[in-house]
Amino acid sequence: MRTEGHDLRHHGDAEVRDDGSALVDLAVNVRADTPPAWLRERIAESLTGLAAYPDGRVARAAVAARHGLPVERVLLTAGAAEAFVLLARALKVLRPVVVHPQFTEPEAALRDAGHTVDRVLLREEDGFRLDPAAVPEDADLVVIGNPTNPTSVLHPAAAIAELARPGRTLVVDEAFMDAVPGEREALAGRTDVPGLVVLRSLTKTWGLAGLRIGYVLAAPETIADLERAQPLWPVSTPALAAAEACVAPRALAEAAHAAHHVAVDRAHLVAGLEKFAADGLRVAGPAEGPFVLVRLPKAHAVRAHLRDLGFAVRRGDTFPGLDEEWLRLAVRDRATVNSFLRALDRAVAPTRR
Amino acid sequence: MRTEGHDLRHHGDAEVRDDGSALVDLAVNVRADTPPAWLRERIAESLTGLAAYPDGRVARAAVAARHGLPVERVLLTAGAAEAFVLLARALKVLRPVVVHPQFTEPEAALRDAGHTVDRVLLREEDGFRLDPAAVPEDADLVVIGNPTNPTSVLHPAAAIAELARPGRTLVVDEAFMDAVPGEREALAGRTDVPGLVVLRSLTKTWGLAGLRIGYVLAAPETIADLERAQPLWPVSTPALAAAEACVAPRALAEAAHAAHHVAVDRAHLVAGLEKFAADGLRVAGPAEGPFVLVRLPKAHAVRAHLRDLGFAVRRGDTFPGLDEEWLRLAVRDRATVNSFLRALDRAVAPTRR
Repeated sequence: MRTEGHDLRHHGDAEVRDDGSALVDLAVNVRADTPPAWLRERIAESLTGLAAYPDGRVARAAVAARHGLPVERVLLTAGAAEAFVLLARALKVLRPVVVHPQFTEPEAALRDAGHTVDRVLLREEDGFRLDPAAVPEDADLVVIGNPTNPTSVLHPAAAIAELARPGRTLVVDEAFMDAVPGEREALAGRTDVPGLVVLRSLTKTWGLAGLRIGYVLAAPETIADLERAQPLWPVSTPALAAAEACVAPRALAEAAHAAHHVAVDRAHLVAGLEKFAADGLRVAGPAEGPFVLVRLPKAHAVRAHLRDLGFAVRRGDTFPGLDEEWLRLAVRDRATVNSFLRALDRAVAPTRR
Repeated sequence: MRTEGHDLRHHGDAEVRDDGSALVDLAVNVRADTPPAWLRERIAESLTGLAAYPDGRVARAAVAARHGLPVERVLLTAGAAEAFVLLARALKVLRPVVVHPQFTEPEAALRDAGHTVDRVLLREEDGFRLDPAAVPEDADLVVIGNPTNPTSVLHPAAAIAELARPGRTLVVDEAFMDAVPGEREALAGRTDVPGLVVLRSLTKTWGLAGLRIGYVLAAPETIADLERAQPLWPVSTPALAAAEACVAPRALAEAAHAAHHVAVDRAHLVAGLEKFAADGLRVAGPAEGPFVLVRLPKAHAVRAHLRDLGFAVRRGDTFPGLDEEWLRLAVRDRATVNSFLRALDRAVAPTRR
C-alpha cells in the first residue's frame, strides 16, 4: 500500500530477505539469539498436541494474571498485526487519527477497512515528543506507539493518558515496552483510563516473529467486539504455549535482564554514532527502545554502501513524517555494534569528499 | 452465535474438552494418531527459524504446484476458519446463500460481517443430495461443502459446477476431500468454472488442528481481494513448514493410502450401525467422508449414555436442517469401532423398553 509516497507495507524483514540472508541484520527489531533454548523446548513440547483444536483459556488466564487483570480484559491475537486488523474492522469509528512517525501497519489496516485516516506528525525539532494538543479533539480513535517505532521515543504515560476522552478509543502499541527497563511509562494493566486499548507483542523480545502471538488489553466490551471479529481458533497451539511461557515469572525476569542489556548496548551504539556528528549524523532521542533512529545526509547511498559491506539497516523513508535521510538501526551486542560502526565509517567516507 | 435455535459456534472440540479428555473421541473429525512423526519432525525443525518473520512464498508455490495452478490462484490461510472470515468481509456480496446441513462456520462468519444469509436446506428424504434448482437464481455467493460435513454426502463435481453463474462466487469447502479415495469429485485445480473458490484444509488428514493452516484456490482477482483483508504475516512459520511438507508427493501418497483405510473402516462402522435398524437407527448416505451422520430416536439420551460409557460423539442438532435425533460419528479404526458399537448397544438398550 502506497499513500502519499510512503509504502506502508514495507517492513524490516524485506531488507534481509532474498540476497540479504548473509547480511548482519540491524534492520529487523527482533532481539538477537532468540528464541532461547528453554522457550524453543516449551514450544516443541506443544507439537505433540497438534491434532487437537487450540484451547486458549490457560494462556489467556496467564496473560491476565501477568498484568493483574481479569480474563475479560485480555484477547490473544495472531501477532499485533491481527490486532490492528480487528481494531480497524470491529470498532465503530468515524475519525481515526494515527500519531506518526510510527509503525505503519495500524494505518494500513484502517485504510484497508475503508477508513479515511488523519495523521498527526510529530516533529524532529520537538524530539518527536507527543504534543497532546496536536491531536484533533473530535478524533474517536487515536493510535500511538510507546516506545515509538521508529523514533525510539518513550512518551510519558501521563501524556498519553491525557489523550483519553469520552467516546474515544485510545490505542497504545506497547510492542516494545518490555525492552524498556522497568517498563516505566507502561499503560498495560491500567483500568482507570477510559477507552484505553493496549497492544503487546511477544515477538521482539522473545524472537517469536515466526509464531504470530500477541495480545490486546482493553475494557471487556471492547475485547468482546474484537473477539467477535476473530476467526475461530485464531491462535495456534504452539503460539499459546509460547504466550503462557513468556508471561511466567522466570521469563519476565529474563526479559527485564535483557532490557538492561539493551540499554547498555544502545548507549554504546549511540556514543559511537555521535562520533559521526561532523558528517551531519543526528540521533533522534533520547532513544529508549531497542533501536535508534538516525538522520544523515545521503542516507540512501550510505545504506546501499552498508549493504555492500555486509550490513542491513532499515530505510526510514517509508514512515510518514520521515524522508530518505533517515535510517533505523536495531541495537545489537557490543561486538556487532563495533563492526557496524567501522562499516559505517567506510560507508560514510564517500560522502565526505 | 445462536440463530433460529442452532448454535452455529458449537464444534466437536467442545464435546471432548474439560471432563471429556478421558473419552474415546468420535466427536472431532481429525484423523487419529496424527500428526505422523515425520511431519512433527519437519514442524519441529522450523522452530529454529522463529525469530524471523514468516515468509510464505515457498509454501505457496508448493501448494500451487500440487494443484497445477499458478501462485496467483493460491492463498494460504490460518486454517479454513480464517478463509471464511476473509470471504465474508472482503467480497462484495448482496445475497449470500449457504447450502445446509453443513459446517456452520461460513454462515457464522457471514452473519458476523453483517450479511443476511439465506439457507437452502437439503432434505433427508433426498439423501441430502444437492438439487441445483433449489439455489435461488439471484444468489451472488453460494457456499457448499464437498464431501459435506456433517452429512458425509459427496456431491458430483458436475452438479456443483452447475451452480456457477456470471457474477456469482461459488465457494466449495473441500476440507475433507483428501479423505475421499482419488479425490474424485474435487473441483480444486479447475480453472474453467467461473467464480469458483475452493477451500482446503490440512487439519483433518494430518492432525494439524492446533497449527491453523489451510488454503484458498480461486481466480487471481479474488485471491488479491482476500489477501488484502488478511493481517500481515497471517500464517506462522511452523504452519508454513507443515503446508510445504503436506503437499509433497510422499505426503500425498500417504494421504491417499489413509483415504482408502478410512473407506474400509467406514464400511465396517456403517455395517455395524445397520444392525441397529430395529432400534430406528438410520445412516445418512452413502457416506463418503471420514465421518457418518446417523438418525436415531432419543439420540440426545443415547449420546449422554455413551458419554457415561466413555465415548464422545458429536451432537447433530446444532446444524441447520437437523434436530436432536441426529448424531455425527467420526470414523475410527476397526478396534475402536467395535468397542463403540458395543457401547452403543448398551446406550440404546434403555430406549428399547
